[in-house]
Amino acid sequence: MAEALVLEEKGKLSLRDFPVPDDLGAGDVRVAIRTVGVCGSDVHYYTHGKIGHFVVNEPMILGHEAAGVVLEVGAQVEGLKAGDRVCMEPGIPDQTSRAAKLGIYNVDPSVQFWATPPVHGCLTPEIVHPAAFTYKLPDHVTFAEGAMVEPFAIGMQSALRARIQPGDIAVVTGAGPIGMMTALAALAGGCAKVYVADLAQPKLDIIGAYDGIETINIRETPVAGAIAEATEGWGADVVFECSGAAPAILGLPALARPGGAVVLVGMPVEPAPMDIVGLQAKELRLETVFRYANIYDRAIALIGAGKVDLKPLISATLPFKDSIAAFDRAVEARETDVKIQIELPDA
Amino acid sequence: MAEALVLEEKGKLSLRDFPVPDDLGAGDVRVAIRTVGVCGSDVHYYTHGKIGHFVVNEPMILGHEAAGVVLEVGAQVEGLKAGDRVCMEPGIPDQTSRAAKLGIYNVDPSVQFWATPPVHGCLTPEIVHPAAFTYKLPDHVTFAEGAMVEPFAIGMQSALRARIQPGDIAVVTGAGPIGMMTALAALAGGCAKVYVADLAQPKLDIIGAYDGIETINIRETPVAGAIAEATEGWGADVVFECSGAAPAILGLPALARPGGAVVLVGMPVEPAPMDIVGLQAKELRLETVFRYANIYDRAIALIGAGKVDLKPLISATLPFKDSIAAFDRAVEARETDVKIQIELPDA
Amino acid sequence: MAEALVLEEKGKLSLRDFPVPDDLGAGDVRVAIRTVGVCGSDVHYYTHGKIGHFVVNEPMILGHEAAGVVLEVGAQVEGLKAGDRVCMEPGIPDQTSRAAKLGIYNVDPSVQFWATPPVHGCLTPEIVHPAAFTYKLPDHVTFAEGAMVEPFAIGMQSALRARIQPGDIAVVTGAGPIGMMTALAALAGGCAKVYVADLAQPKLDIIGAYDGIETINIRETPVAGAIAEATEGWGADVVFECSGAAPAILGLPALARPGGAVVLVGMPVEPAPMDIVGLQAKELRLETVFRYANIYDRAIALIGAGKVDLKPLISATLPFKDSIAAFDRAVEARETDVKIQIELPDA
Amino acid sequence: MAEALVLEEKGKLSLRDFPVPDDLGAGDVRVAIRTVGVCGSDVHYYTHGKIGHFVVNEPMILGHEAAGVVLEVGAQVEGLKAGDRVCMEPGIPDQTSRAAKLGIYNVDPSVQFWATPPVHGCLTPEIVHPAAFTYKLPDHVTFAEGAMVEPFAIGMQSALRARIQPGDIAVVTGAGPIGMMTALAALAGGCAKVYVADLAQPKLDIIGAYDGIETINIRETPVAGAIAEATEGWGADVVFECSGAAPAILGLPALARPGGAVVLVGMPVEPAPMDIVGLQAKELRLETVFRYANIYDRAIALIGAGKVDLKPLISATLPFKDSIAAFDRAVEARETDVKIQIELPDA
Repeated sequence: MAEALVLEEKGKLSLRDFPVPDDLGAGDVRVAIRTVGVCGSDVHYYTHGKIGHFVVNEPMILGHEAAGVVLEVGAQVEGLKAGDRVCMEPGIPDQTSRAAKLGIYNVDPSVQFWATPPVHGCLTPEIVHPAAFTYKLPDHVTFAEGAMVEPFAIGMQSALRARIQPGDIAVVTGAGPIGMMTALAALAGGCAKVYVADLAQPKLDIIGAYDGIETINIRETPVAGAIAEATEGWGADVVFECSGAAPAILGLPALARPGGAVVLVGMPVEPAPMDIVGLQAKELRLETVFRYANIYDRAIALIGAGKVDLKPLISATLPFKDSIAAFDRAVEARETDVKIQIELPDA
Repeated sequence: MAEALVLEEKGKLSLRDFPVPDDLGAGDVRVAIRTVGVCGSDVHYYTHGKIGHFVVNEPMILGHEAAGVVLEVGAQVEGLKAGDRVCMEPGIPDQTSRAAKLGIYNVDPSVQFWATPPVHGCLTPEIVHPAAFTYKLPDHVTFAEGAMVEPFAIGMQSALRARIQPGDIAVVTGAGPIGMMTALAALAGGCAKVYVADLAQPKLDIIGAYDGIETINIRETPVAGAIAEATEGWGADVVFECSGAAPAILGLPALARPGGAVVLVGMPVEPAPMDIVGLQAKELRLETVFRYANIYDRAIALIGAGKVDLKPLISATLPFKDSIAAFDRAVEARETDVKIQIELPDA
Repeated sequence: MAEALVLEEKGKLSLRDFPVPDDLGAGDVRVAIRTVGVCGSDVHYYTHGKIGHFVVNEPMILGHEAAGVVLEVGAQVEGLKAGDRVCMEPGIPDQTSRAAKLGIYNVDPSVQFWATPPVHGCLTPEIVHPAAFTYKLPDHVTFAEGAMVEPFAIGMQSALRARIQPGDIAVVTGAGPIGMMTALAALAGGCAKVYVADLAQPKLDIIGAYDGIETINIRETPVAGAIAEATEGWGADVVFECSGAAPAILGLPALARPGGAVVLVGMPVEPAPMDIVGLQAKELRLETVFRYANIYDRAIALIGAGKVDLKPLISATLPFKDSIAAFDRAVEARETDVKIQIELPDA
Repeated sequence: MAEALVLEEKGKLSLRDFPVPDDLGAGDVRVAIRTVGVCGSDVHYYTHGKIGHFVVNEPMILGHEAAGVVLEVGAQVEGLKAGDRVCMEPGIPDQTSRAAKLGIYNVDPSVQFWATPPVHGCLTPEIVHPAAFTYKLPDHVTFAEGAMVEPFAIGMQSALRARIQPGDIAVVTGAGPIGMMTALAALAGGCAKVYVADLAQPKLDIIGAYDGIETINIRETPVAGAIAEATEGWGADVVFECSGAAPAILGLPALARPGGAVVLVGMPVEPAPMDIVGLQAKELRLETVFRYANIYDRAIALIGAGKVDLKPLISATLPFKDSIAAFDRAVEARETDVKIQIELPDA
């Protein structure tokens, strides 16, 4: 039994005692959770009770963006010890599966992912986790930054799938949290310049404050025209579609250069019409992204080296006892907040 | 002036004298045309007078799938000489363009392509062509096979874009001429097995006669179920969408394995709804295809080595004087014919 | 205790009772071994007592190329059942290792590989093996072929690392068993033609009997000249160096085309001089190969589909009771034999 | 006739009138040269009269790292006009060659490269050049930076061939000008950290002043140990060998992680022994580099965006009239200078 933020059912959160498994396997570590970020998916389960065919049928602990301190390690664990400051990859695959053997464990159908029903999340003081999915943080990287590794990892996965070449010009359509993470990952990953397009000026102001990022408010400037002008009519090397919006998806061919790449990051609720002939006329490559695999170490390396600064994206930090308030703020302040985090007390 | 098959306007063909440019540049060759295949696009210009925004506003010579004999070479031509048996790549890019410098000259916006208005085709006894886009045929490869290189090159481009790994399992949706070419290219390109799905049994019978190809008549068997069964639920490594049909496009995620590839070859007339979330859930890579670049030599190598036999796909051969009849048959016999060719007399 | 072929020490083999672990884990299968191929490495341990820093310090069971029948499966095994005909991947990685997570489990430093000291091999009637590294054979694939999957997998790994494009022209230098396997994998993997160069005519005769393979006896014809002539001076798209011989390694630049690939498969005993400036002048890519990962299923698919026929490479088959004779023949008949196999009785 | 820096023969430079071709073709531009960098190859021709089989048999103008101002454009030139500030790619391929069609025009055997005998260089007030190999500089990029694009392009080519993934850790062995350029390109291209190893502390001090770069003086610290420590024994993702030194080349396997990449940039005079078995044990990929292709635009984009600052690498700038002194300094100050530039007067 431990205190935990429990989604009892759609629309109802409790901070209450909850049975938490705590058997430490030989390959596991026990971690004191220190910071947990609130993700859009956590909020969506709270407000809708489900995402696609994942339905909250029983009380479930929320949270999957976490950093903390190792308390204890299993008998066969190497490379981690009590006291290490760490962050955790929330998805645990079957490492003998066909996908995992290929190195694409993120698409292993049997993956167990925190706070995806019926798997519990990590908004509780202690969790047990496989050491293989627990990553040490450099000394100067804070727990708050450590809890940002998870959402940044999605941006990183997008950047890797793009196969950026040094000096590429990129466009990101959609300046939500994932769009921002993707823009920063693309920039750190070798792009000379990243153009971010959205219609919400407050979000553009936040991401536009970074060197190397230029913003396009599509209420004022059509993105295709802006990119054509910026690239002398050639188009962007890589387009990251992070809005999930149908018009953005339909308009993709106009943004990319001949032979360029499009990464589909945003998740439209419905099948979205795509201009296949337009994509073909430039022989574009399209990549899709599902979470991430083999990304945490490189994300931490970039943050640790100071090549990516995620701290400006943390909009607010609330204590664990105010977790419900944190979620309610996340529901309401969607237009202005990027990331709200919850801090657990030092044990 | 030379005799040529001229599309005067939508629906009206003439075999008549026509002014044909014949200046031989330093890098050009003059070729006596011997065999020309009739392509679906030729037929479409004939029946509709346009394809997309390419409109036949003036009389235009048809034909772009050609083989012949070199008659004369320009002053700077090396590697080709009079008497060489050759086939020609019908698209001529600006070789100083940005796309051409990158090696993707097929997507150079300024490419000049035979029988794409306002550029004339090759259904005339002699043409002048850049030596750089003229390819020698091995002695034992016939002109008829040489004229099949062009459509096969599209299948080859699809196979290259797929990045087949030896032993891959592939699916081709759509058994039209391009679907067949793609299936054969995928098989020659390293697939262990290629499943071809269509609802026209006569076409399936033709392509199913090749070793290594299995057919699925989707009137009887849903393709997703058939592929799941053939792959123990894992899915195909590569899916080539060659039908352009909306249901096939929407159903793509079900056919591919996690981490697999989809090549969009078919050209739907309208934007087609795609199940982006379904594609993401398996983190599929999508490639598109536009004609081909740097393919002819490898296509000829495979044909010359006997790894691909295209002769069974030649449904009929008519003499040049019956060119209009050849086109009329191509319009009518779409369900049973794969390729009709026109033979020009030995000069 | 079970009968096993034991290498007691350098030069001394016994067929005798030996303690064999037989605990069946939840993810394991128990397999009755039916056919085991004799590999050059087995022979080398026999004749030299070591390979590099792997030294036979205690009696060790030999053999790692095996096929058999599943006798029993562990509690959590899915997809395999008693009676299934299978072959086994001899290397078992730590699936939580950094390399295994990346999908390159072959280069996990902690991998346990059959018949590599101090790990025992499989020349004994029954072994226990992880189901994740046990692969079902199609009904029409024999145990003899199943035991060829292991050496063929090295050729396949080479072909994958080469990133063959359909219609490539390849050269293989060195016609030993691995060179032959590589040539066949390259051919099945999309090459239009594979040139195999060696100085032993009997081996060239064996591999030259395959369609699509041409041989070059380098006693008579310098390989560089032969390749230049076959490719009009352009060079081969891919060169597989399978000899490990210093002159072949030094001469690599002359064989490849500008921008081509070289795969280093052969293992020279000493560091070998390479013409780095020559490699650079053509901007060649070099790949190296270490065993294989994620190859067995695709190797079996190609064999099962009939795209690769390995049976002509089986030079002799001896019964288990004559295992020592099999090894002695393998030592002596190196010039004429490709593969000797040992057959175990049906239990 | 125009004034030019002429290498009369080995060891003898003149600044004198020289016949310079000035026919402006339809695709050409005429450029007033403003800044030219002195390259190690220029110096080598001066001191040795040859590089490999390229021998200076007749007087030759030196210089190939140039920026300037467009004076006049040919009839068919688009995208450039008089007054544009530009830099030039010094190698001009045959754009109809097989290599050029593939997009790898750098390895076209017929390429004409400035200041590579018998082709003249650009140390003269005006040159005529193909527009397709002339690139506009952003307004805020100086001519001095423009003339640095050429050597930086080699670093960029190395970074592209490496296929850096965001967050990679890289090592550069050898801190000569090209090693420095490579380190900066790797850093801009997505590496989290780049370790540069050399034995000349002054050079390490220059490159070590950049954020993200750490230096290893191999007189004090063996590079293999330093990298093992920095990566917890795993190794670097990418190793750029820029020294051309035999011990560095032999020691490459120890620096890279399993499955990592090695880029061979340095050019050893003699064939160099490589530890092939060591490279294989980690299944390393090796890339080689020859000049660059399709790099200038992306190099300029990174410089223009401020992601790479090359100005600290310009050690001295001398006027055109002191060109011979500039070369003499380049010969003498090899240990402390990185790049010496020559400035031509504004016409």
